[in-house]
Amino acid sequence: MNERAFLRAMFDAAVAAANPAIVVPPHLPPPPKGRTIVVGAGKAAASMAAAVDAHWPANRSLTGLVVTRYGYGVGPLRRIEVVEASHPVPDAAGVGAAQKILDLVHGLGPDDLVLCLISGGGSALLSLPAPGVSLADKQAINRALLKSGANIDDMNCVRKHLSAIKGGRLAAAAAPAQVVSLIISDVPGDDPSVIASGPTVPDASTLAEARAVLKRYAIAAPPSALERLNDEAAETPKPGDLVFARSSIRMIATPQASLEAAAEVARQAGFQPLILGDALEGEAAEVGRVMSGIARQVVVHGQPAPAPCVLISGGETTVTVRGQGRGGRNVEFLLSLAVELNGLERVYAIAGDTDGVDGAEEVAGAIVTPDTLFRAAVLGVGAKESLADNDGHGFFEALGDQVITGPTLTNVNDFRAILINA
Amino acid sequence: MNERAFLRAMFDAAVAAANPAIVVPPHLPPPPKGRTIVVGAGKAAASMAAAVDAHWPANRSLTGLVVTRYGYGVGPLRRIEVVEASHPVPDAAGVGAAQKILDLVHGLGPDDLVLCLISGGGSALLSLPAPGVSLADKQAINRALLKSGANIDDMNCVRKHLSAIKGGRLAAAAAPAQVVSLIISDVPGDDPSVIASGPTVPDASTLAEARAVLKRYAIAAPPSALERLNDEAAETPKPGDLVFARSSIRMIATPQASLEAAAEVARQAGFQPLILGDALEGEAAEVGRVMSGIARQVVVHGQPAPAPCVLISGGETTVTVRGQGRGGRNVEFLLSLAVELNGLERVYAIAGDTDGVDGAEEVAGAIVTPDTLFRAAVLGVGAKESLADNDGHGFFEALGDQVITGPTLTNVNDFRAILINA
Repeated sequence: MNERAFLRAMFDAAVAAANPAIVVPPHLPPPPKGRTIVVGAGKAAASMAAAVDAHWPANRSLTGLVVTRYGYGVGPLRRIEVVEASHPVPDAAGVGAAQKILDLVHGLGPDDLVLCLISGGGSALLSLPAPGVSLADKQAINRALLKSGANIDDMNCVRKHLSAIKGGRLAAAAAPAQVVSLIISDVPGDDPSVIASGPTVPDASTLAEARAVLKRYAIAAPPSALERLNDEAAETPKPGDLVFARSSIRMIATPQASLEAAAEVARQAGFQPLILGDALEGEAAEVGRVMSGIARQVVVHGQPAPAPCVLISGGETTVTVRGQGRGGRNVEFLLSLAVELNGLERVYAIAGDTDGVDGAEEVAGAIVTPDTLFRAAVLGVGAKESLADNDGHGFFEALGDQVITGPTLTNVNDFRAILINA
Repeated sequence: MNERAFLRAMFDAAVAAANPAIVVPPHLPPPPKGRTIVVGAGKAAASMAAAVDAHWPANRSLTGLVVTRYGYGVGPLRRIEVVEASHPVPDAAGVGAAQKILDLVHGLGPDDLVLCLISGGGSALLSLPAPGVSLADKQAINRALLKSGANIDDMNCVRKHLSAIKGGRLAAAAAPAQVVSLIISDVPGDDPSVIASGPTVPDASTLAEARAVLKRYAIAAPPSALERLNDEAAETPKPGDLVFARSSIRMIATPQASLEAAAEVARQAGFQPLILGDALEGEAAEVGRVMSGIARQVVVHGQPAPAPCVLISGGETTVTVRGQGRGGRNVEFLLSLAVELNGLERVYAIAGDTDGVDGAEEVAGAIVTPDTLFRAAVLGVGAKESLADNDGHGFFEALGDQVITGPTLTNVNDFRAILINA
């Protein structure tokens, strides 16, 4: 068999399962009696909007605006405006787009429909301080929170209560219109209130909790923010609130769904897929070591499953940069895996970022084969040295084993598959 | 069910599967016509010798000497001398014991039997420089090798060629007597030529390779060592050599066998065991993060197996010490696991060193339950803070969740089990 082609087919299936052109159309609601407004934010917002634009009946009303990251725009689209803004640090373009989006959904009636297209990165792109709070004040609190050691739940609680659009406020603004949110998840657990800070999702956290977070971490908030957090009328909309009566959430793509799609490719080819986790985290090189140990167990002891099988996982690893090389999470993982496998026969692997960009380069990832180290040695490239230099891209480029897809305009985190052939 | 008792039963089964009192007797050969000489080295050498002494027929000849680590002695035994020596840095006691062992097996006849009891740590304990090489010279080369970045195979190649007893020389000295080696493995892959540097195992590496290693890493060897490495008459005995004609190897305990024993306990209790690896390596806290991701996948998606199941693994993780606390590999793993699981219901775990000593304390390991973090918080103990301080023993001591077995006098590395209840 062609192991490389098989690995690539699994990766492509994982990406396709998150491709807006493929996953948006089946989830589109029927056109309403009234108007349809498309709004949205995230790295996949433009490609999601393009899918709506292409599939929405030509004879039905459709307008709207979505905001995506600089360079992630597509179009121009016929009926939906696409704005590009800064990520991960918000800028004026993002603030302007958020204000326009709020304006677009104001004053709608019960016959109107708001289609909200949400994906990862939307939190920074859809940034609009609450009335009376300046962007600078909000950013100062954000920085203080990041330095404080507060966890992500605590940070989101404060952010939502200082925002004019997050924590369900967008849905509240759109009521009494019907709101349908199509969401692509890139967060562990796929909690819709976390993705893009949940602009259309009820917020269970409270003003009192937000104040408690600031107190706990001794964060000196500007007077405008304190005033806001002490104004009980500024509470976010809560689960069960009437504003959500006509609001629904559809998870149209998740890391898990992409892993399942790859698993199906494996099954069709006669390989037992073992999905080890849709949200594995840890230092990329260490995850590589653990995975090499599991692959070796398959080879030596036929556990946890006999070969042929495929170990599949998703999630986002991290890289502590110590070297000067060109790297990314996925190639770092693969480099460590190759070093640890040390040429173990019958073991092949692919890893890549489903957004097509691993690290800073437009390379999705790479492929490891049993002769990776041997071929590298012939070329005079040391795997251990490359790993120490965080030079995964350099290493796999030299070998001609990069996986290049171009930007996929979607993101369900990383995809890793280790094939153990019989 | 009592999850704690079940986890402890798995750990105890893993240790029992490596307990010399249990695994040595079934592997004892029949007494020979002639004399029986017991020799051996390693952390389990004394307890293995005790098992031989107790089970060898009282009316048959039995003498011998084994060397173990300071504090790991048992006895005195009736018929076998037990010597304690230094580990991991060899000392004069170890050198003296090695010389005595060589003397004991010299001059035996074909009707005699040498029982060789080998376990982890034997390499340092059974240290005897080749004729003409001083202990100081050998130690200097060892230090240089350790600093050079040479891999374990390279180091063992040099060590074996500078030793009077390693790399099969003990078996060669015992010929024409029958040699039966009973081995307890603590190395990934269970290669008998690696455990205690294989005193009774043919050595496939050569003098020329040993010289090449010194050259490759630019190690300035003392003249005595160079002379030895250039004396072709000083080659180690090779696979197929006649001296091994009556030598046999029996792996009586391995990490894998201990994992299988624990798996059987799980199976009996109705839990599907998934053995993920008998030699998992990596930074302990990172291995904990990966394992928490796999456990979460079982809970959320029923993959790679549906609950109830147990994720079982062995091997030796590492800890990069950054804090001032009292720690060990296993409690570091568990602390990280607990932090990452963050109270996830239905998930319980145990981890411990099968030798009964995790790190520097006579504590084998600990147990994690879904309420570990909650109980710690009530006591005012922070899991994240304890992890940052490498204070696993302090943390689990405060909770009363330590696993204490006392020294087990055997070692098949670490044992980890994560139970995901239904």
